[in-house]
Amino acid sequence: MPAAPQRPFNFAPGPATLPDSVLRQAAEEMLDWHGSGMGVMEMSHRGKEFVSILEQAVSTLRELLAVPPHFHILFMQGGGLGENAIVPMNLAGPQAGGLIDVVVTGSWSKKSLVEAQRYGDARAAASNEVDGRTSIPAAATWQLRDGAAYVHVCSNETIDGLEMATLPDLAALGCQSPLVADCSSHILSRQIDWSRVGVVFAGAQKNIGPAGLTLVFVREDLLGRALPICPSAFDYSVVAAHGSMYNTPPTYSIYIAGLVFEWVKAQGGVAEMDRRAAEKSALLYNYLDDCGGFYRNRVAKDARSRMNVPFFLTNETLNDAFLAGAREAGLLQLKGHKSVGGMRASLYNAMPLAGVQALVDYMKDFARRHG
Amino acid sequence: MPAAPQRPFNFAPGPATLPDSVLRQAAEEMLDWHGSGMGVMEMSHRGKEFVSILEQAVSTLRELLAVPPHFHILFMQGGGLGENAIVPMNLAGPQAGGLIDVVVTGSWSKKSLVEAQRYGDARAAASNEVDGRTSIPAAATWQLRDGAAYVHVCSNETIDGLEMATLPDLAALGCQSPLVADCSSHILSRQIDWSRVGVVFAGAQKNIGPAGLTLVFVREDLLGRALPICPSAFDYSVVAAHGSMYNTPPTYSIYIAGLVFEWVKAQGGVAEMDRRAAEKSALLYNYLDDCGGFYRNRVAKDARSRMNVPFFLTNETLNDAFLAGAREAGLLQLKGHKSVGGMRASLYNAMPLAGVQALVDYMKDFARRHG
Repeated sequence: MPAAPQRPFNFAPGPATLPDSVLRQAAEEMLDWHGSGMGVMEMSHRGKEFVSILEQAVSTLRELLAVPPHFHILFMQGGGLGENAIVPMNLAGPQAGGLIDVVVTGSWSKKSLVEAQRYGDARAAASNEVDGRTSIPAAATWQLRDGAAYVHVCSNETIDGLEMATLPDLAALGCQSPLVADCSSHILSRQIDWSRVGVVFAGAQKNIGPAGLTLVFVREDLLGRALPICPSAFDYSVVAAHGSMYNTPPTYSIYIAGLVFEWVKAQGGVAEMDRRAAEKSALLYNYLDDCGGFYRNRVAKDARSRMNVPFFLTNETLNDAFLAGAREAGLLQLKGHKSVGGMRASLYNAMPLAGVQALVDYMKDFARRHG
Repeated sequence: MPAAPQRPFNFAPGPATLPDSVLRQAAEEMLDWHGSGMGVMEMSHRGKEFVSILEQAVSTLRELLAVPPHFHILFMQGGGLGENAIVPMNLAGPQAGGLIDVVVTGSWSKKSLVEAQRYGDARAAASNEVDGRTSIPAAATWQLRDGAAYVHVCSNETIDGLEMATLPDLAALGCQSPLVADCSSHILSRQIDWSRVGVVFAGAQKNIGPAGLTLVFVREDLLGRALPICPSAFDYSVVAAHGSMYNTPPTYSIYIAGLVFEWVKAQGGVAEMDRRAAEKSALLYNYLDDCGGFYRNRVAKDARSRMNVPFFLTNETLNDAFLAGAREAGLLQLKGHKSVGGMRASLYNAMPLAGVQALVDYMKDFARRHG
């Protein structure tokens, strides 16, 4: 296997870095999975080999996140932007009244709001646009409407770098609507309180790895609320009834995701990912707070994402030099999202502590040379 | 690379066999693509590395199929079953009148008809159900309605084993509606007459390989006809405007498809795939016709698919023995679709002539031993 013994650290926001061991196993099995004579990409999705891969992936995922039996786990396609339409097409059917409340905390939830407006009376229940997307509005201030088909939150905003440490307790706010949480960029980095949600979705290409796979967790009682125009291939009831095999699933992405699930389990599970996320992000945020102003992060401390850390050089004319030096130091894909600018370090599960340490060391050295 | 020097021949209907050389290259590049320090699965889709992979794939595909400049090539998700909804959501908008004519020639076009009925007044313009799906109704007999938003055909029926040798010339039939062709299971095995079609789509998991990628070719003038409820992520206009990057594309599947496109080109292009498809399928059909009744194929000769060859043992009590012996002989995934029964050999581009010869040799031997 021609691979460097020490690969660069890849801070891409998604698709994103994967564990070396997962990639090595995938490479070794590429032409022959478990003596079947076929690579995983070549298997009929209905054959016993792929069925066993799918079932194992679902089962490990259910174990890792302690998903209760009354939630279906669906493997779908289309990513977060696809789900922005697929969720209202599934939950805002005629019997659900058509009201959709969206808590806007950044670029992703804003997109969810705009897309939902095609399918119902969707409004922002709160917004952090007034403060430049640096904090998460307190749940007690959210304007939730009685009888809404659902309330949408994005529990980690990849672009803006905000994260909800816990999902909101809508019942405690007197709201009976189901909560929908877009957990794309922090899934498997902390446990999910299943008593608080109706639907969780996550594009796999951020904290799990391969693009083209969307995980959807849907509570059993929320099936059957789809709009008549919901495509069969994206109808949760249809996908659930066919065990994610109504249309051909993205088989290779499911296989890779399954290897990542096994890797998470072997590392100590979601609890260990949670501990590492706290440790890794603290290392970087502590430096940003203590660096004397050369770099800064604008997000309120209690809203900072452990997965995506946007930061800025106070002297932005140094941005190109910072990125070029980072590449030379083996620190890749640190450029911030075009809508935000500056830098962004994504610290997903597969990013080791050593990568964050290397980034902080480089940042210190760069500040010393240019400060 | 731990792979057998001679792998079994895999006749799966999709996902399906891939060229060994493609899989070997993918394995070699798994941890480090072209010295980038990242595997393809780990690259941001907006980084220059993946953008180059996407652009190369589109460009090679355009060259292979001689796609004219007024057709957009889109890389989407959801497969053929997804497109069954995505096509009418894109073409049957209010200004297009809402009439949809579907030529039913098998399981796939039947599904397209049923799904289209959610979005417009969709009817069967013809059907081969009366003859047990063994022939393709002559185009002159199709009941096409004036002003239909589009006419849908499935030019290769994977399950039933029927293929249109050429796409119908709707204009010659006096029909001005655009033709939509589901070419999922024979794309890249013959040229497409672009003057006859408005939209071509194809799930990649059949004649190209990796699941989770859908190719869509859409004529420029057909953009802008979408229903208001068409999701942004599946709106051809949006996907075209963003160069297949509105949502995160299925990056690894695109990379593998790109390697397959290069492989097709290196083999001699679509003309050579066409020649081989004729040669391989003739080898099998000739044996089926000359075997004296031990096996049979029910499809009319002029409608037989060169990609998917369903066949039956006259004595069906021998089915299990046939399949078990085939596996032992290194001939995999020959079981027919559950709705049809019997056997099915899929002879996609990546299946070498030697595989078909091995199959025919096995069939002869089996017939001799059990005849």
